[in-house]
Amino acid sequence: MPDQILLKNTLIVTMNSNLDIFEGDILVQDGMITQVGKITDNRNCEEFNAHGYIVIPGLIQTHVHLSQALFRNLADDLSLLDWLTKKILPFENKHTPETLRVSAQLGLAELIKSGTTTIMDFGTVRHQQVIFEELAASGLRAFAGKTMMDCGDMPESMKEKTSESLAESEALASQWHNYDNGRLKYAFAPRFVLTCSKELLIETGKLAKKFKTLLHTHASENKDEARLVMEKYGERNILLFDKLGLADENLCLAHCIWTDEKETALLKERKIKVLHCPSANLKLGSGIAPIPKYLKEGIHVSIGADGAPCNNNMDVFNEMRLASLIQKPLHGPEAMPAVETFKLATIYGAMALGLEDTIGSIEAGKAADLTFIKNNQVHSIPYDNIYSKLVYSTRSSDVEHIMINGKWILRDKQLIKINENKLLDSIESQKVNFGIN
Amino acid sequence: MPDQILLKNTLIVTMNSNLDIFEGDILVQDGMITQVGKITDNRNCEEFNAHGYIVIPGLIQTHVHLSQALFRNLADDLSLLDWLTKKILPFENKHTPETLRVSAQLGLAELIKSGTTTIMDFGTVRHQQVIFEELAASGLRAFAGKTMMDCGDMPESMKEKTSESLAESEALASQWHNYDNGRLKYAFAPRFVLTCSKELLIETGKLAKKFKTLLHTHASENKDEARLVMEKYGERNILLFDKLGLADENLCLAHCIWTDEKETALLKERKIKVLHCPSANLKLGSGIAPIPKYLKEGIHVSIGADGAPCNNNMDVFNEMRLASLIQKPLHGPEAMPAVETFKLATIYGAMALGLEDTIGSIEAGKAADLTFIKNNQVHSIPYDNIYSKLVYSTRSSDVEHIMINGKWILRDKQLIKINENKLLDSIESQKVNFGIN
Repeated sequence: MPDQILLKNTLIVTMNSNLDIFEGDILVQDGMITQVGKITDNRNCEEFNAHGYIVIPGLIQTHVHLSQALFRNLADDLSLLDWLTKKILPFENKHTPETLRVSAQLGLAELIKSGTTTIMDFGTVRHQQVIFEELAASGLRAFAGKTMMDCGDMPESMKEKTSESLAESEALASQWHNYDNGRLKYAFAPRFVLTCSKELLIETGKLAKKFKTLLHTHASENKDEARLVMEKYGERNILLFDKLGLADENLCLAHCIWTDEKETALLKERKIKVLHCPSANLKLGSGIAPIPKYLKEGIHVSIGADGAPCNNNMDVFNEMRLASLIQKPLHGPEAMPAVETFKLATIYGAMALGLEDTIGSIEAGKAADLTFIKNNQVHSIPYDNIYSKLVYSTRSSDVEHIMINGKWILRDKQLIKINENKLLDSIESQKVNFGIN
Repeated sequence: MPDQILLKNTLIVTMNSNLDIFEGDILVQDGMITQVGKITDNRNCEEFNAHGYIVIPGLIQTHVHLSQALFRNLADDLSLLDWLTKKILPFENKHTPETLRVSAQLGLAELIKSGTTTIMDFGTVRHQQVIFEELAASGLRAFAGKTMMDCGDMPESMKEKTSESLAESEALASQWHNYDNGRLKYAFAPRFVLTCSKELLIETGKLAKKFKTLLHTHASENKDEARLVMEKYGERNILLFDKLGLADENLCLAHCIWTDEKETALLKERKIKVLHCPSANLKLGSGIAPIPKYLKEGIHVSIGADGAPCNNNMDVFNEMRLASLIQKPLHGPEAMPAVETFKLATIYGAMALGLEDTIGSIEAGKAADLTFIKNNQVHSIPYDNIYSKLVYSTRSSDVEHIMINGKWILRDKQLIKINENKLLDSIESQKVNFGIN
């Protein structure tokens, strides 16, 4: 007898190709959604009364940094390159396996409690094994990869030898790619062009092809960065990726704020994935990415909170709200309507990761990755258009339960796989390593 | 024996002139703060163990619309003038005393649960009595006033006769100004220049002077509005207020996005109060107000969420976060550091309302208006600078208790003066009046 649960009497926002929304039931068997609709036959299986909730596809963030969760609120009011070289790289360089474990748990706890079920994580340069162990334990669906960097402005002790960076990445990919029936996958993660040699980028591209997986990096986030890339390589950032053989549908680029027409055309032609991080782009003073233009061109956009110290949350509801709001003064109030933005965190997120057959909508045959939102709250009623409610007025604190692969990961706001009290104690004891009393 | 409570062992963010922050106690007697610090003598009074909280001054929003709470999520993706004439004015015109009462309760419930203890409310054209009744019952500290409008683009049935608008406003002020020992005050509220005759504006200015109180209106929110004001009156909006005799320290202007150098100079010279509404300014596509410039000039700025249908929350934590974030791409990442933004919602809010001797900081001699934030939460730790934590990573759902005039208004997230379940039922029954099934 398979593992079954029937989710009864709920409001379902499917995000299927018809954008169907209805009151009904969801049957989950062996981690999969096997039926969606009015399910009336007596199945003799466990029932969960989901009346009073809105059930949405588990939310997807395609760019986060678990390794930085422990640096939240410690690097404020700085621009990208100062933030990186004066604060974040020195902090990452101080990570021990113990501090990294606590950071990963902290990030995972926040992500799960705020309704995110799938992430693509950008790792750190050492002890990446720890992040995979915590991802494995958490139940979250994830792509992750160790940071690669072999040149540029950083503490000498964290600058890698090219060959060693490649070897370590390949070993981690061999161990973790497709772990737990594909719940975890490896995404190769060179930091950004200014900390990577051409050789490192080219060889990493080959590794990504060898493993048939994603190459995840940062690009064109900041004007100074774009200028320095041009000075270093004599080419604009996105065009350089083409020269190095990386510009294909498996290339995932966080930010893409400062792109020109040629780069925009390349993003479209090669089906490169843009990972949009609206809060971080504001907070570091980087700018506002031309997302309405990208979407109009058919360029693929998804969303992520980036790291805690440039946000300072990892809250997908914050990101959705901002993704809509910040475009309106530039492009008019009708820009980025709520339904479009909601796609960024659901079906478009799934497509960015090549997982559109597995997640991103509530349909029979997909994994049972579900987020349960408490509906009747004084700050989010009334509503007519449910996407307005979800994007503009719902808060992450409205998330009551999440399920991944049919397993409860959050129930009644309580983390199932992480001991929250123990985690809070660990943060108390580890934060002194980063200069906090 | 006076009514006493000793709040023990808490982290106090005072917002006094030294910006003192310390672990200690607060003694509250007869609604006032009488002592702040380490209070060791045995007082034989009720104690409240506030360990684990951050206690901050009750937060202040100087521009909200209770009458619009019931229109949340019903007027999205429109620019200001369309939003107003196609949606909001027709909705307000449909208000009965019953629907207005539910709307006010809904707004008050949201405001209280998210940590706001003082508001300045912009009312509606009819049934304003209901809003005052609900404010009186809620325990909140407030300025409020009936909307005045006697010309312009609106349903004919809501266009007032000038004399009647003035008479009704004066009668309401006579009844409610300084109600409950000054907890409620009247602020005269002509809607904006495009719906007010010169006579109405001039005479309202005289009424505000007669009652020694505030004149609260909207100005220079939208480019089209600014152009139409110039067409109608041959003068820029803020300069027109000067011509009409309104430009003094009691003039409170929501928005002030599209001001020129002369208007900026006048805002400074006359100590006019700017009420900044960052979410609404984005959502209606209005623009980004030049707040860093205003603050540098010494112009007085405070903050508010505006109405639910242009936000779509009334959450002061959203507003603080955005007030900082949206300025950084324009003015650099060091613009609007967290401590400056936190002032907008505390001491500067108090000054906007002329209540700086009563609220806005935690000091002996001020009213005991306090907001209690749960400190140790996975989405807001760690921290070094507490203002970063409060502005960038704290959520309104971290508010556990609020106290106004020494009385609990929210305790363990539960509303004391509003029956939340009954309110939710009332919204169900009243929302059909606005076209929602």
